[in-house]
Amino acid sequence: MEALKNKILHEGQAIGSEIIKVDSFLNQQIDAQFMYEIGDEFKQRFQDKQVDKILTIEASGIAIAVCTSKSFAYPPVVFAKKAAAGEVSETEDAFYSYIAKSLTKDTTSHVKLAKKFLSAGDNVLIIDDLLAYGEAALALCDIVKQAGAHVVGIGAVIEKEFQGGGTLLRESGYAVESLAIIEKIEDGKITFKPDNL
Amino acid sequence: MEALKNKILHEGQAIGSEIIKVDSFLNQQIDAQFMYEIGDEFKQRFQDKQVDKILTIEASGIAIAVCTSKSFAYPPVVFAKKAAAGEVSETEDAFYSYIAKSLTKDTTSHVKLAKKFLSAGDNVLIIDDLLAYGEAALALCDIVKQAGAHVVGIGAVIEKEFQGGGTLLRESGYAVESLAIIEKIEDGKITFKPDNL
Repeated sequence: MEALKNKILHEGQAIGSEIIKVDSFLNQQIDAQFMYEIGDEFKQRFQDKQVDKILTIEASGIAIAVCTSKSFAYPPVVFAKKAAAGEVSETEDAFYSYIAKSLTKDTTSHVKLAKKFLSAGDNVLIIDDLLAYGEAALALCDIVKQAGAHVVGIGAVIEKEFQGGGTLLRESGYAVESLAIIEKIEDGKITFKPDNL
Repeated sequence: MEALKNKILHEGQAIGSEIIKVDSFLNQQIDAQFMYEIGDEFKQRFQDKQVDKILTIEASGIAIAVCTSKSFAYPPVVFAKKAAAGEVSETEDAFYSYIAKSLTKDTTSHVKLAKKFLSAGDNVLIIDDLLAYGEAALALCDIVKQAGAHVVGIGAVIEKEFQGGGTLLRESGYAVESLAIIEKIEDGKITFKPDNL
């Protein structure tokens, strides 16, 4: 998505060889108008899919998911919550819960979703802002599986290909669409993967 | 807003005399189409205001703020983050920070926002899902003040009048618009304040 790549280059900030900051339009300050363009692009990428629900994770996925819902004629949006390990009892019957181990930090966290918001048979589109190591997406996929529902696709605004999450998910059989794929970051310089490969 | 009151009555759940659960359309599952109607209603209520930025707080304010931005011809949305006390150093120069004391729980939490997202002179509309004791709104007002910016209004989807936050904010001079005002909850029965009072 050319407009997105331009925005990343002009408004984003690459740090070292791992980090891309896009908090001026995606993660903390939100360019709402641009979010609708992103929603339309997801609709185009997943146009053959039946989407009953859009699932994301707090906080930065919410804006994108809500704008994407508009492009899909308004399926309900549901967001999973993050809790520090210990805050959520695993025996809480009302929640689907997943313990995510951080690959970058030596921590675990709980991802949880009230069971009433996902039902067996639901066709679920997972949406998130960043796809790096894939921890959040894997957590959401697991929750969908717990519900007996079906992941029709995973849409990420930005994928950092070199961190492997996208590859892992595609090899697991998921339809992953990332609107801008970063091959590498070197001394603050971003190299994108060409769109049509 | 009649449509909202109907939705609260039919899809919400009143518990005891204090709590209203609206997680089926507002706080965890989001009825995106309805959020746009809410945005349009805020636009109507604040139609005479210049809005340069919409400020909210994670996580449940984000969807409402993004949809409201559309109704105001897309001013940027910014959301403040919540951190447990201790997680944020007060000396972090890059952030506006506010220590909120919970009136309901014996805890304090930090509300923080990167300074670069709010500038002196900005006209800020504060948007949130629930207005109860007013803690979140007071935190956001304080952050706007720290920035030398100006609060043009505070919009809440649901106000629990009996918990006093709305009254406190109005008495402090803020233009507060709540789309549904609950006067009392009694044995699970909700009494709304009439719209035109």
